[in-house]
Amino acid sequence: MKLTVPINLPHAPYDVQIGAGVLGCLADLLETMRASSVVVIADERVDALHGGALRDVLSRTKLASAVLTFPAGEASKNLATYGRLLDGLFDVRPAVDRRTVIVTFGGGVAGDMGGFVAASALRGLRFIQCPTTLLADVDASVGGKTGLDHKAGKNLIGAFHQPSGVLIDTAMLKTLDDRQLSNGLAECVKHGVIRDESLLTHLESARDAIFARDEATLGDLVARNVRIKARVVLADEREANIREILNFGHTVGHAVEVMGGYDKLLHGEAVAIGMVMALRLARRRGLIDDASRTRVEDLLARLNLPTRCDNIDADRLWEIMLHDKKARGGKVRMILPLRLGEVAVFDDVTSAEIAETII
Amino acid sequence: MKLTVPINLPHAPYDVQIGAGVLGCLADLLETMRASSVVVIADERVDALHGGALRDVLSRTKLASAVLTFPAGEASKNLATYGRLLDGLFDVRPAVDRRTVIVTFGGGVAGDMGGFVAASALRGLRFIQCPTTLLADVDASVGGKTGLDHKAGKNLIGAFHQPSGVLIDTAMLKTLDDRQLSNGLAECVKHGVIRDESLLTHLESARDAIFARDEATLGDLVARNVRIKARVVLADEREANIREILNFGHTVGHAVEVMGGYDKLLHGEAVAIGMVMALRLARRRGLIDDASRTRVEDLLARLNLPTRCDNIDADRLWEIMLHDKKARGGKVRMILPLRLGEVAVFDDVTSAEIAETII
Repeated sequence: MKLTVPINLPHAPYDVQIGAGVLGCLADLLETMRASSVVVIADERVDALHGGALRDVLSRTKLASAVLTFPAGEASKNLATYGRLLDGLFDVRPAVDRRTVIVTFGGGVAGDMGGFVAASALRGLRFIQCPTTLLADVDASVGGKTGLDHKAGKNLIGAFHQPSGVLIDTAMLKTLDDRQLSNGLAECVKHGVIRDESLLTHLESARDAIFARDEATLGDLVARNVRIKARVVLADEREANIREILNFGHTVGHAVEVMGGYDKLLHGEAVAIGMVMALRLARRRGLIDDASRTRVEDLLARLNLPTRCDNIDADRLWEIMLHDKKARGGKVRMILPLRLGEVAVFDDVTSAEIAETII
Repeated sequence: MKLTVPINLPHAPYDVQIGAGVLGCLADLLETMRASSVVVIADERVDALHGGALRDVLSRTKLASAVLTFPAGEASKNLATYGRLLDGLFDVRPAVDRRTVIVTFGGGVAGDMGGFVAASALRGLRFIQCPTTLLADVDASVGGKTGLDHKAGKNLIGAFHQPSGVLIDTAMLKTLDDRQLSNGLAECVKHGVIRDESLLTHLESARDAIFARDEATLGDLVARNVRIKARVVLADEREANIREILNFGHTVGHAVEVMGGYDKLLHGEAVAIGMVMALRLARRRGLIDDASRTRVEDLLARLNLPTRCDNIDADRLWEIMLHDKKARGGKVRMILPLRLGEVAVFDDVTSAEIAETII
C-alpha cells in the first residue's frame, strides 16, 4: 500500500509518498530530477540500522553517491555539526555541483540540519527528505522549515527550503522504540486539537494497533497528519500567519525543552506538557469545558506522554518564552483551543496566568 | 543629488538610493518598515570611520539598536565569524524578534555575511544594505546573494535573500583608498563588456574625475552600474541563467583568488586578470578582434588594475575551476565576449586553452 499526498505549493509542488518500502522509490525520483550526484546526510543510528537498504537503492542508480553521518540526537543540531557536514560535502569527489541532490535520512535532526545544508550549500541544492521517525514523518515532512539550534533557543538559525520530494517508509517505524513513537504521537494529538477532532477519536481507538506497528494503521495515520499539516501550510500562502496555529503546545513546550537543556525531554514530550498547560489556561479563561481538557490529557497519558512536569521555575519559564522567536514586541504569543478542532492566537497571556497553570 | 534606482523584483521590490548623505535616509526607511529593533553588522574599519554617523542616524529613531562588528577583510567571511555574529545577535537585549531589521554596513564582506545572518536568523529577518566600498556599491547591492567562503571555495555557503532597501552613501568613497576604488572599477568594466559598451567609453573619459572622488561623477557611475546589474538580474526572473553572464572574468578570477588564499589579490584584481584571460581566449577563438581586447586591457591598466599574474600553475588553476560551484557535470563554464557589450556562455573550454591563455 502506497499513499501519495501532493503538496501543492504554487512555486515548489512536491509529493509525500507514504508506505512500507517507499524508500525504493528514491532511485526513480533521482532520475526524474536529473541529479548529477547524491549526498546522503544521515544520523549514525539510522545509518547503522537502515544505511544498507539505502545504499542498495542508490546502487541501482548510476549516480556517484556519498554518505555523511553525524551522531544521532538533538545535541548534534548545531553550527559545529553543520560546519563538519559542509566540510564533508565539499570534500566529496566528484565535487558537488548545482545538480547534486541531498538526501536527508533520519529523524527530525537529520531533516532539519540536512535541509539547512541543502538550503545553504552553493546557495541552495535540491533535497529529498526520507524521515525515519514518526515525529519527522508527521511534523517535518511538510512546511519547508530547516534549521539548527542555538544555545539561546531551538531552531533560531535556518531557512525555508522546500524538498523536491518526501519518502516516508513506514517500515522504518518497526525499529523505532515506543518512547520515540509517542514522541511523534504528541504532534498527531496537536493536529487533532487544532484542526480535526475526529483525529483524536481515531487516536483513541487505534492506540493499540499503532503501538503494535500495524502497517496499514501507521500509513493511514501518517497520511492523515500530513494532509492536516499541508492544509494549514497551504492556507498560509493565502492568509498570513495561519500556520502559527501549528505552534499549539510549542510556546511553553520550547521553553520547557530549553530549561531541560534539550536532553531530558524529547520534543513531543515537551509539547505534550505545553499542550496540557495551554488546555488548562484555556479552561481557566472559560474557552473550553473541562471534559475537552481531560479528554486530551487522558489521550496523552494513554499514548505514554507526560502530562505534568515537576519543579518548573515559573519566572525562568516566562523569561525563555519572552525570547522565543515567535514572541513579538515583548509579548508572548500562545495558541489556545476554542473547542477541540479549533484554536486561535492570543498575545495577552500574562506571566501570572502561566505561573498559575504550571502542572 | 540623490538618485533612486527601483529594483522591480516581482516578489520583493526595493529601492537603491544613491548619493552623498543618503545614509540619513535610514531613519525614515526603518520607520516605514515598522522595525521593532535594529542590529547593525559592520566591519571594524568602517565602524571606526563612519560608525559615529550611523549611530547619529539611529539615535533619531526611537528604536533599540545594537552594533556587532567583525575584523575587516575577506579572511573574516567564514563560518566561525558567522557563528560569533549569531552569538552576538542572540545576546542583544531586548531580544531580536521577527520585526528586527539587520543593517549591514561595510564592504562586500559585511553585506554578504551580514546578509546571510539576516537570511538565516529566525529563518529570515529583513535587512538593509549600506555598502561603503565601490565594489559593494556596484556589485553586491543588487541580486540578493548572501554568503560565506569555505576553504574549498568562495561563496560556497549562503542564500538568496533580498534586502528591503539599499543606501549607497557615495560620501563614504572619500575614505576609500585608490586600490579599493580600483577594486570596484573592475566590476564596472565587467558591466561594460557584458552589456554596455558606452560604459567603457564613460570610464575612459571619467577616469580622473572618479579618482578625484568627484561626487556627481561617482553617483552617476554607481547608478549606471546598478541599473545594468538590475537589468540582468530582472531578466533572469523570466529567462533562466541570464545572470550567469555576470560571471564574466569570475571563473578564472575566483580560481586565481583561491590560489592566492583570498589574501594577496583583491576580488576586483582577480576579476581583472580573469577578464584579460577571457578576452585573450575569445581572441584566440576569433570571437573578438584584437582592438577590442587591447582596448579593455588598456582601460584596466589605466584604472590601476593588474592585467597579468605571474607564476600561475595551469594544472592547479584548472582543478580549482572544475570545482567552482558554477561548474556542471565536470565542465568548466566560461563567459566570453562576442563583441564589447555582448557575451555568451561557453562550456567547451579546455584545460589546454586555459594553459595557453595564462598571462
